[in-house]
Amino acid sequence: MSRRTGKRTFALSGVYAVAAGTVVGDMEGKGPFGPYYDRVLNDDLFGEKTWEKAESKMFQFAVDKAIEKAGLMTGDVDCLIGGDLLNQIISSSFAARELHLPYLGIYGACSTFSEATLLGGLLIDSRSMDCVVCATSTHFSTAERQYRMPLELGTGRPPTAQRTTTAAGACVLRNRGPGVRVTGCTLGEIVDWHIKDANNMGAAMAPAAADTIAAHLLETQRAPGYYDCILTGDLGHHGSEVAIKLLRQRGFDISKNHADCGIEIYPANADVQSGGSGCGCSAVVFGAFYLKELMKGRINRLLLVSTGALLSPTSTLQGETIPGIAHAVAFESGEEG
Amino acid sequence: MSRRTGKRTFALSGVYAVAAGTVVGDMEGKGPFGPYYDRVLNDDLFGEKTWEKAESKMFQFAVDKAIEKAGLMTGDVDCLIGGDLLNQIISSSFAARELHLPYLGIYGACSTFSEATLLGGLLIDSRSMDCVVCATSTHFSTAERQYRMPLELGTGRPPTAQRTTTAAGACVLRNRGPGVRVTGCTLGEIVDWHIKDANNMGAAMAPAAADTIAAHLLETQRAPGYYDCILTGDLGHHGSEVAIKLLRQRGFDISKNHADCGIEIYPANADVQSGGSGCGCSAVVFGAFYLKELMKGRINRLLLVSTGALLSPTSTLQGETIPGIAHAVAFESGEEG
Repeated sequence: MSRRTGKRTFALSGVYAVAAGTVVGDMEGKGPFGPYYDRVLNDDLFGEKTWEKAESKMFQFAVDKAIEKAGLMTGDVDCLIGGDLLNQIISSSFAARELHLPYLGIYGACSTFSEATLLGGLLIDSRSMDCVVCATSTHFSTAERQYRMPLELGTGRPPTAQRTTTAAGACVLRNRGPGVRVTGCTLGEIVDWHIKDANNMGAAMAPAAADTIAAHLLETQRAPGYYDCILTGDLGHHGSEVAIKLLRQRGFDISKNHADCGIEIYPANADVQSGGSGCGCSAVVFGAFYLKELMKGRINRLLLVSTGALLSPTSTLQGETIPGIAHAVAFESGEEG
Repeated sequence: MSRRTGKRTFALSGVYAVAAGTVVGDMEGKGPFGPYYDRVLNDDLFGEKTWEKAESKMFQFAVDKAIEKAGLMTGDVDCLIGGDLLNQIISSSFAARELHLPYLGIYGACSTFSEATLLGGLLIDSRSMDCVVCATSTHFSTAERQYRMPLELGTGRPPTAQRTTTAAGACVLRNRGPGVRVTGCTLGEIVDWHIKDANNMGAAMAPAAADTIAAHLLETQRAPGYYDCILTGDLGHHGSEVAIKLLRQRGFDISKNHADCGIEIYPANADVQSGGSGCGCSAVVFGAFYLKELMKGRINRLLLVSTGALLSPTSTLQGETIPGIAHAVAFESGEEG
């Protein structure tokens, strides 16, 4: 049963990440994790008539694949926890309709994957549930036309902008292994440093990432070096620099063991400005690569910190700043000590 | 600690609904529960420049009021779980920014209030958390222009349409009383009976309500009469008829103890077609009236079943049908037996 180790942090036991399912678009497939994804789409319509339907099909594919790789059946799953970036999270909800699973829809912008994993971890730790699937999706073409401009315009992008990844990832959490232990989590609080530029979401999310990482380290009394990897979700190049600097000011040096899903997902020479974004990004980077590294023991301890920018086009038009949030989930390989 | 009593149902112990905060618009204030709300707005802009900012302020008011009525301080609250109908749930997220609370954003359309309460109940039952605030909001004017037509058009509405309520409600759940016990919950699954008419959401949600109520009764081995009141959220007149009929076909007669928040919130002669809707509706009807009735022992057992239609304007334009979902939460007055 979970033990509170601080205001926002919970120690978990008996929770295992046992398998993940991932699918990405063509451009993401050309990135360094290309060989690790379960499927790379040549056609980002995935055989559907619209990008929105394609994104929902990707969500469904990721969940089905994760359940299959866990050696389970849909009927073994107690609950699907998921969300995405589309208005009314239709990618998740329409996928949940096809999956016939009890369903809890969530929204945390690009922090959604760690929010889902945190909730799933708490529900399994408490023995309420035995098996939860946590899933998210994003699609460049659905996000672009919903959040920004019609794709046909071919709008230019400033260097701080991030590219919404075409990616869907699902992770099966279970009350037994074999798998990677989910050993703790830290709830995010909203941090808003009054950034107004929707083309600089890394800077808007970085203070939230730094806040959650600092809270996690303080409440667990751990040094940053406890983790082999502190993996932020989608700060990009600019946001990562800001987060590292903010944490240094608070006495934590994460520069040596920090990685960011938004930086890592694309090839180094890709034309994606500050990096990738979208809640699918951390789901597939974690699920396709880091989870396997943990399973193989090549990484022993990882803190996943997906970060979200809780704006909407309406809030931006109404002159609002961008609230950021980040939830953290700790994963450790090997048996319980 | 929660005990699974079936695939989707959990028995909870040591969870209490201790106080609620509510605020509604002028038209809702003229309904039968007018005297019970904490605040009735004369001006649905609530002193703000836009309806979206007003809705977020209502959300914040409801949370602050609920915490105050519980005799607590913000610092006593472990987590805020909330959502609303606006794209990217900005009402909740911008309110959470002002409230400085750990925050889990969720989206379940009009089922959001019971989804929040179900999650809060499970997290307190497991002793992970001591105090959770569950909150939702909706606003007629923000929903109308986002989901349907510019208000200035004054579009007519068919008899099956429902009016989005201007309402925000928050409920404090705690690990100790005095309060009303939260004794169980049943997770919703998506049910889609291929309704395509966004002006008939009651019919789209009724099969999901019937499915969850039947699952709850079967998995708890209870007859409908176990509850003094089975309170659905926002089926309206048409949807309620459908749900009662569907349950009768499955051998459950809820006609004698069924009430619907969407029917009850407005005066009987109000020009609101089939009734009210919006996730704020069940939050304020439950929080302002039924929770007090339970506290006073005038009702002993109530099953709250908020119902959601998981469509978006985009999914409708792309020819999709409307997936429905409903989550159920059981409340009982008096001490643990």
